[in-house]
Amino acid sequence: MKPDHLPTFTVEPWVVREPRLDMDAMGQSESVFALSNGHIGLRGNLDEGEPHVLPGTYLNSFYEVRPLPYAEAGYGYPESGQTVVNVTNGKLIRLLVDDEPFDLRYGTLRRHERVLDMQAGTLSRDVEWESPAGRGVKVRSTRLVSLTQRAIAAICYEVEVMETGEGDDSAGKSEDALLVLQSELVANEQLPGRGADDPRLEAALDNVLEPEQSRAGDAGATLVHRTRGSQLRCGAAMEHEVSGPEGIQISTDANEDLARTTIIARVRPGETLRVVKYLSYGWSSRRSLPAVYDQVRAAIAAARYTGWDGLVAEQREYLDDFWATADVEIDGDAELQQAIRLATFHILQAGARAERRCIPAKGLTGDGYDGHTFWDTETFCLQVLSFVAPDAAADALRWRRSILPQAFERAETLGLKGAAFPWRTIRGHECSGYWPAGTAAFHINADIADAVRRHVAATGDTTFELEVGLELLVSTARLWRSLGHHDSAGNFRIDGVTGPDEYSAIADNNVYTNLMARQNLRYAAEVAAKHPRAASRLGVDSEEIASWRDAATAMLIPFDERLRVHPQSEGFTDHQLWNFEDTPAERYPLLLNYPYFDLYRKQVIKQADLVLAMQIFPDEFTDEQKRRNFAYYEAITVRDSSLSACTQSVMAARTGHLELAHQYLAEAALVDLHDLAGNTDHGMHIASMAGTWTAVVLGFGGMRCEADGLSFAPVLPPSLSRISFGLKWQGRRLRVSMTPDEVEYHLLDGAPMRLRHHDEPIALDVEAPVTAPTPPSVWVEPVEQPYGRTPRQRA
Amino acid sequence: MKPDHLPTFTVEPWVVREPRLDMDAMGQSESVFALSNGHIGLRGNLDEGEPHVLPGTYLNSFYEVRPLPYAEAGYGYPESGQTVVNVTNGKLIRLLVDDEPFDLRYGTLRRHERVLDMQAGTLSRDVEWESPAGRGVKVRSTRLVSLTQRAIAAICYEVEVMETGEGDDSAGKSEDALLVLQSELVANEQLPGRGADDPRLEAALDNVLEPEQSRAGDAGATLVHRTRGSQLRCGAAMEHEVSGPEGIQISTDANEDLARTTIIARVRPGETLRVVKYLSYGWSSRRSLPAVYDQVRAAIAAARYTGWDGLVAEQREYLDDFWATADVEIDGDAELQQAIRLATFHILQAGARAERRCIPAKGLTGDGYDGHTFWDTETFCLQVLSFVAPDAAADALRWRRSILPQAFERAETLGLKGAAFPWRTIRGHECSGYWPAGTAAFHINADIADAVRRHVAATGDTTFELEVGLELLVSTARLWRSLGHHDSAGNFRIDGVTGPDEYSAIADNNVYTNLMARQNLRYAAEVAAKHPRAASRLGVDSEEIASWRDAATAMLIPFDERLRVHPQSEGFTDHQLWNFEDTPAERYPLLLNYPYFDLYRKQVIKQADLVLAMQIFPDEFTDEQKRRNFAYYEAITVRDSSLSACTQSVMAARTGHLELAHQYLAEAALVDLHDLAGNTDHGMHIASMAGTWTAVVLGFGGMRCEADGLSFAPVLPPSLSRISFGLKWQGRRLRVSMTPDEVEYHLLDGAPMRLRHHDEPIALDVEAPVTAPTPPSVWVEPVEQPYGRTPRQRA
Repeated sequence: MKPDHLPTFTVEPWVVREPRLDMDAMGQSESVFALSNGHIGLRGNLDEGEPHVLPGTYLNSFYEVRPLPYAEAGYGYPESGQTVVNVTNGKLIRLLVDDEPFDLRYGTLRRHERVLDMQAGTLSRDVEWESPAGRGVKVRSTRLVSLTQRAIAAICYEVEVMETGEGDDSAGKSEDALLVLQSELVANEQLPGRGADDPRLEAALDNVLEPEQSRAGDAGATLVHRTRGSQLRCGAAMEHEVSGPEGIQISTDANEDLARTTIIARVRPGETLRVVKYLSYGWSSRRSLPAVYDQVRAAIAAARYTGWDGLVAEQREYLDDFWATADVEIDGDAELQQAIRLATFHILQAGARAERRCIPAKGLTGDGYDGHTFWDTETFCLQVLSFVAPDAAADALRWRRSILPQAFERAETLGLKGAAFPWRTIRGHECSGYWPAGTAAFHINADIADAVRRHVAATGDTTFELEVGLELLVSTARLWRSLGHHDSAGNFRIDGVTGPDEYSAIADNNVYTNLMARQNLRYAAEVAAKHPRAASRLGVDSEEIASWRDAATAMLIPFDERLRVHPQSEGFTDHQLWNFEDTPAERYPLLLNYPYFDLYRKQVIKQADLVLAMQIFPDEFTDEQKRRNFAYYEAITVRDSSLSACTQSVMAARTGHLELAHQYLAEAALVDLHDLAGNTDHGMHIASMAGTWTAVVLGFGGMRCEADGLSFAPVLPPSLSRISFGLKWQGRRLRVSMTPDEVEYHLLDGAPMRLRHHDEPIALDVEAPVTAPTPPSVWVEPVEQPYGRTPRQRA
Repeated sequence: MKPDHLPTFTVEPWVVREPRLDMDAMGQSESVFALSNGHIGLRGNLDEGEPHVLPGTYLNSFYEVRPLPYAEAGYGYPESGQTVVNVTNGKLIRLLVDDEPFDLRYGTLRRHERVLDMQAGTLSRDVEWESPAGRGVKVRSTRLVSLTQRAIAAICYEVEVMETGEGDDSAGKSEDALLVLQSELVANEQLPGRGADDPRLEAALDNVLEPEQSRAGDAGATLVHRTRGSQLRCGAAMEHEVSGPEGIQISTDANEDLARTTIIARVRPGETLRVVKYLSYGWSSRRSLPAVYDQVRAAIAAARYTGWDGLVAEQREYLDDFWATADVEIDGDAELQQAIRLATFHILQAGARAERRCIPAKGLTGDGYDGHTFWDTETFCLQVLSFVAPDAAADALRWRRSILPQAFERAETLGLKGAAFPWRTIRGHECSGYWPAGTAAFHINADIADAVRRHVAATGDTTFELEVGLELLVSTARLWRSLGHHDSAGNFRIDGVTGPDEYSAIADNNVYTNLMARQNLRYAAEVAAKHPRAASRLGVDSEEIASWRDAATAMLIPFDERLRVHPQSEGFTDHQLWNFEDTPAERYPLLLNYPYFDLYRKQVIKQADLVLAMQIFPDEFTDEQKRRNFAYYEAITVRDSSLSACTQSVMAARTGHLELAHQYLAEAALVDLHDLAGNTDHGMHIASMAGTWTAVVLGFGGMRCEADGLSFAPVLPPSLSRISFGLKWQGRRLRVSMTPDEVEYHLLDGAPMRLRHHDEPIALDVEAPVTAPTPPSVWVEPVEQPYGRTPRQRA
């Protein structure tokens, strides 16, 4: 929330409402209001296209190549990268009222409200506008990107001509209004220029779409384009259903980059012109022009067959089912309640229908990070999706398996065995142009293996384990075996890598990385031993399995005996402390204001690293170590990454810092609603959204999901009166509700199960919920954050 | 020397002779035959310009700016770099013989010899050529870049028409030949394209020179240009003196980028047409067009006043004086003798008249490394120049002082105190586009301080110490004080820096860096205490001096107790050994065939680092440590840098590996004559040339030059029968000659002095040389190099 400024959004449990047009927050609202099903993404741009901050229509994995230049190149540097493409914009509906363009910058805006309804899965808009000539209209539009029909988006657009005197008392306005709607498909939209100062922003590409076909029908059209470099073909189609007064004229024309259906009607005051616009999108790297053309025509035919009301109904049904599992209820912090629902909604939108494509760091809500996918997917998004939308999680891992060929090739380039997954990519090729924070961040490979492990534990899906998991595990275990080495003392070391914290790089024996690699090696050994024939087909023999186990057993986990904390990496705790006192607030994020050189050599942490290791491996740290490590790293972690607060929340909760956990949870949840990072205009922070769920479930809920079962250790901060969350577990649905006094475990469906509550076994069946006492909170010594980096108090 | 190929050059003591045109080695010979005085550099291109590999005419510090692009930019990355400019080419003299262009690719080449005469300081050429039409001519040219007149180069060009039958017995050739000479100044020559695969090569820039003025006289012309980006103004003038048969016609014309004096003569067989071409160059960033114009006209007038014979005589006189001090005589290895003289000659050429400009890594012999200056200057070149051409050394350090403002600014950008000198630059701005091997290589600052210390010790020049040295020392000491920090145990640590070895980067407590920083801090304290008033004017007080001494005293020098060797940096000896056995010869240099990621994390060394520390700080290592360290690092050093063999030679000699020292000395000396690195075409390896002298004098000679005096510990390898070298020391000239039995110390001029011979004091005066016994060599355990990287045996 900006100071000196009314809140952009109201606080309501199930909707995000922008009660008035907030031009200053337009980039932010375009992202917050973005609709997506994981395949298609439409930014929350105004129907009429302008004004805008960043127009955006994205298709998952539809990218263009761009050169990656280097002042001094090096062997193995990627020569070209992949960048998300703003595809043909079908959201556009321009309106002319008596020849005056409907443009919020002109005339008089009497009312402008937009509502993202997270139960309906729609973005609606309600406008009362008086043209410069004094004609009043009400414009209502509702937009959806279908979660049930993957290729489909639709818009219901209504214009009502207002009675005289309703908006203005000038005479002569009770006459008919001449309304002209131009509903368009526009390819190669001009994108706004970007400042090149921020390394997180990437150059936009112009005119990447080469026209291949354009056809106009009576009330619709189809455009097919192909990218110049990546040679991907994209089809976009629109059709319109129009109702309203008599005498409506409809015509359509199309040229290479523009198709336009024009709807003209004379509308009396009080009457409404209603247009339903169906949009379909499809793309392919291999299918022919006619095939892609037919694909989008078929999809749009199906959508019209379903109809607008049908699409809306399907959408709600899909979401009802989703929320029945996934909803997190928070009593005692209304802002947080809303933010958590928005977070959960955006996680669903990012992953729901990605279907063996990647889940980008920004989902399909903006072009930040060039549209790339990072470790965010496995470590943050899948942590949620495996428990609330397991099919989407499985598909994301199937995507990883599908890019194994590129990962094998990359490993070979790097002189390694197995697979080296790209640090950032769209379709599998390494797109990182700065290797110390790219290639060197090998932990992504273990993050993928961990996501496999978690997914199998959450779902019990052994078919997935065999068909998808095994090869991912074997390939990543091979990587670690070749990346590390035994030193003369017999320790298995992994030198010169970069852990999650990007304010350090190229260090030896990063604790997070080594613990993750150890688990990767052990779990690969376990799964390979379980599926010997399949493993054998991958060339795995018992010697290789033994070598993984040996390396895992010998894995070096450094510990600073003097400070009695784990160093993030070997030697880390010997480094100079960052001078936080002399670092003014405006020089955050530090990476934009201090050289990497300075950051890397000092004790300052961008994001949870050792603390994330403690989240994932609670048994590898004693309680004292957890407490001491948490306090040590709290004091030097600046949270310049949105991937940090959620993890800090989990470990704050687990070490008894319950109010701090609440604060970090809120920070993670509000990152986009309050634009805390100042860059929501480039897209939603999907991993932080996911981390919100994680903070609730793994932190306050104390959930652990291991092969041997599910356990909880719920704790509730005094500031909240109730938390309730749900999840799927091995075919069941479970809901956990915590109050200050007790925790209720409710098996909603599925076979009876056992779980542990604070280490006590509990048997559950669908007959009746079981309650257990919430343990009293105990006083713990407070921890401190760096100067000026204390999280915001919750009211 | 290439296999299956006659040697390009003959082996002779004082000249480098190319007995026949070797088209395959043309790029190499252009560099080897480059003439320079440190201000002007002319590559050894043919007079007629073609064929060529890389045409090159350079003026010290005359550069253009070019953008430095980054796939992912970061704070503090330099946005633009400086690149050497190929300025107006005045070497060009084209010849037409009866309308046939004199072009070695056509007609019949009966003889083609080029000779670089290191005593005369000239490159001469002797050609017998028969035109396609059968006309025979002898072309003799001699070229010099004046060491006495800094702005001047000159060419004496003679064409003799051959008698009939001399070259061919066809009839009708005893008639007059019509000779046309076109002597030119050409700006914006087209440069050949470069492969972008090699990160060491940089893009050439086209048409950087904008014409400002061109004027033609009767037999000469002047062109003035200005660079587009850097706004530097360059003037070039030529004048001709022509003699020969009657009736010679001379005319000159000039346009923007071309001035041409045309000389036409009808020449009878046996007659000679002789042209002396005087060239003058000047440039300025501040002076006006008329001023630069007048400057080059004045210089050329002075050159004509001196005349060709005068210039030749001055040149020889200058060189006689130089060689009297600097000559290194080697008996027993003729190839090495020649190579050492060539090396010494190129060092002189690089530094002689640089006069407060930089000494680039390639001198002015090519455009390799963009024409940049690195630490090579201080650590390699000045190690020689302070002892053989101390004025040039002083000027190079004055240049460093002149770029202090840029170094202060860079330090501020990096959040540091004092001065942070650029890793690579032409005029003081950091031009490194890869910070782990650029900005992080802070040792350059201590290298500069060490060069100051050495220069003051060599010259006893306390005025220099006060006026130039003090501020350099104070500024660099401040840098180290702010770069390092005291850890909780009280050690002063310097973390996250890169030492000399570029196959490691961003490591903690690099031994070389920490020892150099310690010396820098101590020496700055000493000199500041010696000049309290001047130090006070720089803001130095006794507290600051004390803080330097404290940091120096507490400096952490890591040692591996288990292996009993010094790790190059903390933790280095724990890293995995590079797999040398599986690294085929064609994958060297490794940096072009393996990712930095892989190199940095393993034990593999590009170039001497810890071994260089042992060369500079013999007292910081016990004899056992020297022996063990040398053996340890020998086994992992691949010498992918030309800055390595010379240092390895020094330490091989000092640890008793005398034959190995000889081999490394030869490798350093022959790097360009034998094109051992395969890239001599881009310019001479000036630091390796300098290292040749260092290997002889510091290695075999065992010289140490400390504030308390000069000492020697000569050792002679059995393969050589005599080494003699000379040097200047505190206003004296001294010659040291070593035979298997004895060492002769000869004070050639100057006041009586004392020195030490193998720790024994010796008193010397000019009356008579003193001899002392050469100690017998003792057997030492052999050391091994990495598989396939053993240096070549000497025959």
